[in-house]
Amino acid sequence: MGFDIHPMTAGDKPQLMQLLAATPEFEPAEIPVAEEVIDAYLARPGVDYQVLVAEESLCILGYICFGQTPLTRSTWDIYWMAVAMERRGRGIGAALLRRAEDSIRRAGGTLVLIETSSKPNYLPTRRFYLKNGYKKSSRIVDFYAPGDHRITFEKRF
Amino acid sequence: MGFDIHPMTAGDKPQLMQLLAATPEFEPAEIPVAEEVIDAYLARPGVDYQVLVAEESLCILGYICFGQTPLTRSTWDIYWMAVAMERRGRGIGAALLRRAEDSIRRAGGTLVLIETSSKPNYLPTRRFYLKNGYKKSSRIVDFYAPGDHRITFEKRF
Repeated sequence: MGFDIHPMTAGDKPQLMQLLAATPEFEPAEIPVAEEVIDAYLARPGVDYQVLVAEESLCILGYICFGQTPLTRSTWDIYWMAVAMERRGRGIGAALLRRAEDSIRRAGGTLVLIETSSKPNYLPTRRFYLKNGYKKSSRIVDFYAPGDHRITFEKRF
Repeated sequence: MGFDIHPMTAGDKPQLMQLLAATPEFEPAEIPVAEEVIDAYLARPGVDYQVLVAEESLCILGYICFGQTPLTRSTWDIYWMAVAMERRGRGIGAALLRRAEDSIRRAGGTLVLIETSSKPNYLPTRRFYLKNGYKKSSRIVDFYAPGDHRITFEKRF
């Protein structure tokens, strides 16, 4: 594989923020929200959020952020996920997702949810989830904006 | 009506917390989460959350907590709502909901979502939303716990 996956540390943050800013699917308004979640994770790792990064030769290639859904028995959310544009197609996203799922299963999770957009530029993202064993669970029309629906994917253990 | 509705202030909190603790639909684990949201509202009213209370003769009868859904153009969430058990059936919940909807509409909101449980003791709650013009929008099986599904209701303006 050439890369390894480990829990994010504070030192990874500058590179990760650059990766997020360069991720074409993210709107500028999403970056500060993703950062808030990263900061909440760094302040109390594993309490509300877990963050894993994929790294190769000191270079951050991608990340995944997940956590147990508050007030549920065993439901978990994959909140954020990104792989650097020029590193896609090497299985980094699938490896990150698998590691997150392993961790969720070990913690007793039985349901994993991922919310994503119906926009055309998210088609590769949606195909990625389907290919990795997720099913479309529900859809809320015009959730993000007119014409931009929220699709929720689910996987059950 | 005999009661009035106004934005919550810090002085309302002790009574409101007693009301929440006595609300039979709420599980004990939900109370600290509801309190966190109330504290976030009191710290920065109207930023992430708005809270309205119904009051009569200095007595808090019910409350509603809502806010714009992060990263959406014009979607709003009704996060929490409660009416004291012994005050139900007087239209307090409907009045709180109408006031929240007015405020959402004035702020440009076009979609209101309410997530609730499929449990039998939430049947009056689900009927209340249907009676007030909400439609079932989606359902995620076993979301809260095995057998306890999440039902999302929606209203569009």
